[in-house]
Amino acid sequence: MNKLPENLQLKYNELVLKNYSLNMARGKPCEDQLNLSNDLLSMKLYYESCDGVDIRNYGQLTGLRETKKLIGELVDISEDNVFIYGTSSLNIMYDFISRSMTHGVNGSTPWCKLDKVKWICPTPGYDRHFAICEFFGIEMINVPLNDDGPDMEIVESLIKDPSVKGIWCVPQYSNPTGITYSDEIVSRIAKLKPAAKDFRVYWDNAYCVHHLYKDDQEHVLNIIDECKKTGNEDLVYEFVSFSKISFSGSGVAAVISSDRNLDFVKKQLTIQTIGFDKVNQLRHVLFFKNKENIMRHMMKHAEIIRPKMDLIDEVLSKEVKDFARWNKPKGGYFVSLYVDGKAREVINRCKEMGLTLTDAGCSYPYHKDPSNSHIRLAPTYLSLDELKIALDILSLAIKIECN
Amino acid sequence: MNKLPENLQLKYNELVLKNYSLNMARGKPCEDQLNLSNDLLSMKLYYESCDGVDIRNYGQLTGLRETKKLIGELVDISEDNVFIYGTSSLNIMYDFISRSMTHGVNGSTPWCKLDKVKWICPTPGYDRHFAICEFFGIEMINVPLNDDGPDMEIVESLIKDPSVKGIWCVPQYSNPTGITYSDEIVSRIAKLKPAAKDFRVYWDNAYCVHHLYKDDQEHVLNIIDECKKTGNEDLVYEFVSFSKISFSGSGVAAVISSDRNLDFVKKQLTIQTIGFDKVNQLRHVLFFKNKENIMRHMMKHAEIIRPKMDLIDEVLSKEVKDFARWNKPKGGYFVSLYVDGKAREVINRCKEMGLTLTDAGCSYPYHKDPSNSHIRLAPTYLSLDELKIALDILSLAIKIECN
Repeated sequence: MNKLPENLQLKYNELVLKNYSLNMARGKPCEDQLNLSNDLLSMKLYYESCDGVDIRNYGQLTGLRETKKLIGELVDISEDNVFIYGTSSLNIMYDFISRSMTHGVNGSTPWCKLDKVKWICPTPGYDRHFAICEFFGIEMINVPLNDDGPDMEIVESLIKDPSVKGIWCVPQYSNPTGITYSDEIVSRIAKLKPAAKDFRVYWDNAYCVHHLYKDDQEHVLNIIDECKKTGNEDLVYEFVSFSKISFSGSGVAAVISSDRNLDFVKKQLTIQTIGFDKVNQLRHVLFFKNKENIMRHMMKHAEIIRPKMDLIDEVLSKEVKDFARWNKPKGGYFVSLYVDGKAREVINRCKEMGLTLTDAGCSYPYHKDPSNSHIRLAPTYLSLDELKIALDILSLAIKIECN
Repeated sequence: MNKLPENLQLKYNELVLKNYSLNMARGKPCEDQLNLSNDLLSMKLYYESCDGVDIRNYGQLTGLRETKKLIGELVDISEDNVFIYGTSSLNIMYDFISRSMTHGVNGSTPWCKLDKVKWICPTPGYDRHFAICEFFGIEMINVPLNDDGPDMEIVESLIKDPSVKGIWCVPQYSNPTGITYSDEIVSRIAKLKPAAKDFRVYWDNAYCVHHLYKDDQEHVLNIIDECKKTGNEDLVYEFVSFSKISFSGSGVAAVISSDRNLDFVKKQLTIQTIGFDKVNQLRHVLFFKNKENIMRHMMKHAEIIRPKMDLIDEVLSKEVKDFARWNKPKGGYFVSLYVDGKAREVINRCKEMGLTLTDAGCSYPYHKDPSNSHIRLAPTYLSLDELKIALDILSLAIKIECN
């Protein structure tokens, strides 16, 4: 390795000696964000739902009506098409793919009986989506994620292959690039006529209300409505989660889809469980009450997250604008930083100085970033002071590696 | 159909005219039982676990240590071998079989790649167990469940077949016969050396603390300890649930097994979810605190359930002892009633008079009771007054059909 310029070497030595232990690897809310929902820990519940369902007993597989209504409001869908399904939307997606493997989709051949199952993966994307595909041996095909959504020319060509069974989408404030799909792209997705009848769009609307600004928001088009317009109602499963609204891992998660899709799933689900936790469902309704309150609540999240996003942009602009590019998101949890051909090296350097970033390649199928350029920044968990140090480390690492 | 004797016909007509709608089909707790845990709905929680884990954030996949400790106490197992896993033990069992289908067990061939997977089903047994096997196309083999457990001669012979991959057991206060496996049977199970390395005993300890009497209790031998003695540690998955301790569907569920088994599952689970609801886990610990309190709490359940079990025994003894036999359980939720060759007919008659029982054959694989004799009674949900009417109907139905 070449010798470093003295000023960088000194700064590097200094930072290593500090023994920092900072973690920006995952999109976790910080304590201030969690505190916003503390009343969930102490509120007094009654035990009858609006329909007279005793929330303490078995039953009501698809969830309480009031909770369906609340989630339906969030994404502008009738409560009849909302299926409350545990606390983890990742677990719902896993379950859907797992059941497709063993039982097919609405009666199709189980995917485990097929020679090959393929999946369209707009990249960069969410590592846990890709991990599910990898776990099930589903072959992932990279498609560029542009600023307005996936490259639809390529998508439209790929779906002619009947072994292509799905596509991952994080359509609003995407993980990790922060972009929102344009109306045109959503319409094109809703019009897809895949060769495989068991092809589904996995629409992970994880950041549906996670705006950072009051007056400068992006809103993805309602894909369920768009699909209805073209008689394509069964094309999409939409997923929503409260993990980044209330408490991570203790929220409420739901899948939204057509009657036919949900009826099929409901029949399968009766084998899997007697029902999900309705106490937590009612607790969320009593705490949030309606969409308006949730939007107000999300603005409090925004006030905590926005300064962190601002700081990233400010420090990177000042320190490394000649060596890197990045986005400044209007919502969601992540910043995508690009350092041409040097991502792994920068991430390793950061590690040496006590800053853990998400692993290199994490945002690509099989952990393979073809250009070794992308770094996902997840600033929410750190305090502003910690983030300042983290960005010092990151900036130095970039200067060292990209010089 | 033959004409009924006049007294039976009159009573039948009278009961039909009452338009009753009584349901004894499922093992659901009644409102009085649920009321015992109402403090769970209003207690004030703090948000740090004993290890300083923030219960409101992601993490701690296998559960909070204090919750593992509490469940470990219940079944006398080290907390290190307890994996808290959502709210539904049925869902855990489903997941375990589903992952065995797609990924095998601790590295074995995925079951979906095998020509045939078979399962040992002591009968009568729990219908939802059998439903999981049926869903996955696993061939079920009936084995008699005797008063001391499954017929082990047959079990020991069946496991020589490498396509036999598991056995269902409800070892204490079994669903639906109420029996508890003898120490001898448990030891024999723990010593099994199945031809299939991926054979597992599914030990559904659903009624581990569900005694009906303070001084006349049955306690199944600790199978995890027994397995250790014979170097057979990986043989058993044990399942425990709070659904019939606190709230049904909103309790805490866990799987207990060897380090090796749990390590394998943990690696798989990281793909499936980021973690389960820790708020509910801590809430349960703060409410119950320790095993002693749980045992006291279960005695309150017993005081509500015992009079119902007594009433069944009393009415049936008085009315139909010449036509039927049944057990009087010391714990659990069910009574097994046998009417030789007439179960379906009795159940249908009851339905005509407004009493829904569990479907005929439900306690046997593929809903096929070979002798059409078994009826599962689930008396907990009804009030004593309702149960009295239900037993009037049932007695009359038996007299009509078994005369």
